[in-house]
Amino acid sequence: MRYFINDLSKYVGEQVELKGWVYNSRASKKIKFLQLRDGTGTLQCIFFKGECDESAFEKFNDLTQETSLKVTGVVREQPNKPGVFELGASNFEVIGSSVDYPITPKEHGIDFLMNHRHLWLRSKKQHAAIKVRAKLVTAIRDFFDGRGFTLTDAPIFTPNACEGTTDLFETKYFDEKAYLSQSGQLYMEATSAAFGKSYCFGPTFRAEKSKTRRHLIEFWMVEPEVAFNDIYDNMDLAEQFVEYIIQRTLKECPDELKTLERDITKLSVIKAPFPRIHYKEAVEIIKKENSDFVDGEDFGGADETILSSKHEKPVFIHHFPAAIKAFYMKEDEENPKYSMSCDLLATEGYGEIIGGGQREDSLEKLLSKINEHELSPDDFSWYTDLRKYGGHPSAGFGLGLERTVAWVCGLSHVRETIPFPRMYGRQYP
Amino acid sequence: MRYFINDLSKYVGEQVELKGWVYNSRASKKIKFLQLRDGTGTLQCIFFKGECDESAFEKFNDLTQETSLKVTGVVREQPNKPGVFELGASNFEVIGSSVDYPITPKEHGIDFLMNHRHLWLRSKKQHAAIKVRAKLVTAIRDFFDGRGFTLTDAPIFTPNACEGTTDLFETKYFDEKAYLSQSGQLYMEATSAAFGKSYCFGPTFRAEKSKTRRHLIEFWMVEPEVAFNDIYDNMDLAEQFVEYIIQRTLKECPDELKTLERDITKLSVIKAPFPRIHYKEAVEIIKKENSDFVDGEDFGGADETILSSKHEKPVFIHHFPAAIKAFYMKEDEENPKYSMSCDLLATEGYGEIIGGGQREDSLEKLLSKINEHELSPDDFSWYTDLRKYGGHPSAGFGLGLERTVAWVCGLSHVRETIPFPRMYGRQYP
Repeated sequence: MRYFINDLSKYVGEQVELKGWVYNSRASKKIKFLQLRDGTGTLQCIFFKGECDESAFEKFNDLTQETSLKVTGVVREQPNKPGVFELGASNFEVIGSSVDYPITPKEHGIDFLMNHRHLWLRSKKQHAAIKVRAKLVTAIRDFFDGRGFTLTDAPIFTPNACEGTTDLFETKYFDEKAYLSQSGQLYMEATSAAFGKSYCFGPTFRAEKSKTRRHLIEFWMVEPEVAFNDIYDNMDLAEQFVEYIIQRTLKECPDELKTLERDITKLSVIKAPFPRIHYKEAVEIIKKENSDFVDGEDFGGADETILSSKHEKPVFIHHFPAAIKAFYMKEDEENPKYSMSCDLLATEGYGEIIGGGQREDSLEKLLSKINEHELSPDDFSWYTDLRKYGGHPSAGFGLGLERTVAWVCGLSHVRETIPFPRMYGRQYP
Repeated sequence: MRYFINDLSKYVGEQVELKGWVYNSRASKKIKFLQLRDGTGTLQCIFFKGECDESAFEKFNDLTQETSLKVTGVVREQPNKPGVFELGASNFEVIGSSVDYPITPKEHGIDFLMNHRHLWLRSKKQHAAIKVRAKLVTAIRDFFDGRGFTLTDAPIFTPNACEGTTDLFETKYFDEKAYLSQSGQLYMEATSAAFGKSYCFGPTFRAEKSKTRRHLIEFWMVEPEVAFNDIYDNMDLAEQFVEYIIQRTLKECPDELKTLERDITKLSVIKAPFPRIHYKEAVEIIKKENSDFVDGEDFGGADETILSSKHEKPVFIHHFPAAIKAFYMKEDEENPKYSMSCDLLATEGYGEIIGGGQREDSLEKLLSKINEHELSPDDFSWYTDLRKYGGHPSAGFGLGLERTVAWVCGLSHVRETIPFPRMYGRQYP
């Protein structure tokens, strides 16, 4: 029988054996305190002279930071802290020593910490951020699974580029070339025609030679697609989805968000509906504060911040110029200069977390877009098939997991939102 | 308000509008039957002369296979089939036509079907297999999330090989090289030291130039790891896990398994504990039927079948020779020729679905193994750090999703277990 710290409330008064690592320790003549970390929580273990094994008292000084050990004792509630438990420890046994553990309570530079990511994950805030990430993943999957969506994993190896070729990672695929997927979106159109509502959730890749606080080379994206949905259905779905994952994480990760010192009042207001702004209107708002902005172009990070700072909820920007969107985005029939696209900007300057829209359902227009973008129609013949055999409106979106984790955790950089970040110039550890 | 076929029991007697595709149709003078498919189910829609719109009767012949359309009518229970619903249809409107849909009820060759995978997914058995896959994924995640494991995604880009370099996909990672991950296992040792119990679940890659019914180039693997577990804890965990995912899928996918004509009596017996056989004992069993087998070598598919055919439950084979296992596998201290490894063979000849074991926790032995395997100690210095700072026993395993789906669905080839399979010579669609 293995005991874990987050489970000890069931074993009050019982003798248990715990396995973990030294998080901290302090000692006086008559009493020694060990903060034991086992990955599920930390526990105060108290060795009282006379009450514990004598040898435990003698060898207590061997317990350097991150030494692994086995501790035995009796579980008890802390006298003045109902619901908080401690161990009346009787003895311990060292499993693995730890000499000069590199991450000490003093300040370390970010490069040092990133080089020690495999150990840095044991630190409180890093641990909390990855716990929030895991909870967000569960919430994301539960949202879609609970609403009749079918998970249909998209392939990573693709023979062609769907969002332009500059940022692609290429690999030799036997006698051909293959590119690493930037999006499962095209594939989700095929699967939503088979399953009605589908989603994929996996790693995607962009070979961006830029070091910004919002970019990773390798990041996870969830991409739902619904057959027969239009852009407005899509925004309805996206706002219900974002409300659900935020509110559930707030409810289920209070300790982690406290550790991260997150101001949760900023998150508790994230409830549908969200404001919706046409690109044209967004341009007017931006121009008042950034006179350099050129109508028709995509927003920079600062422009996104101008837009999101006006609201306490995330903001949809819709109908971006067709020229700056992917080939598969449907034209606005009332004004073909614009597309049926919609992005969602998070609050507090965290930027775009969702990109999506309605897909071009006209075979003719799609073929001419493929041409315009200088893509090979043969590569996409399976995709155009979807218009030939029972074509239909279709809409969906992609939510970037790491940016969402950064937003929820209040982290200034995405590098702390994934266990082992891959960035320009970094693929270690 | 959007209605879906799998949800119609709530709307008996109500007028609804459904969107979907023509699955089948037949007509007589006074009555026309449409089988409507919307991805969540199929529904019989009945047009009665005199009761439906006259135009519906006239244009009914336009409804070729996979035409997309909108159908209106009233939901009713089928007279002699309680729990089965149909639509008393009043009218329909075509959304997208479908001329010469390539997949007809007649037999097609496998290459043709694979080239039309984007459409083949709409067929009943393919649809059912992917539904089972999605349910297995949910069951896998629920098992680990419900037992205190933390999801810690492993990176896809890795600077080095963990299982040997021959089967690796290589890509240019800016000025360096990167390889696509074959396993997240090493990373899970770091995260289980931070979280106690961790798992990753993502795509992994093997550049195998072989076309077999058990191999994909790109496949999904779930890899749990538990700090302080040994090989026996690991087998306990693996058998509880396999029981859970099989029994839950049996319970929640009865219709899909029926569509797939799966003999579920073969699955309902999959309950822990599973038989456990030492490699030495397995060799004796194999040699009786395959005199060519050489003691010390790995099993071939036929050898696995010999072993699994003796049991109605999956079988663990443990303590494989160290020489045929990865560098990180712990030596058996009683006989260093063997390793603390354990694989699980599925029943009915479906082969190995789990590989795992206990990790080498001695820094000295690990360094000498890294040397023996001609790997660079620098590349693995983060990994050896885990032994320097509070090292400990650790064990885990990897379960291949696609082989498990094939087993549960009773499919003879893994190519039908993933929406868009990647195999030697195939990356389309």
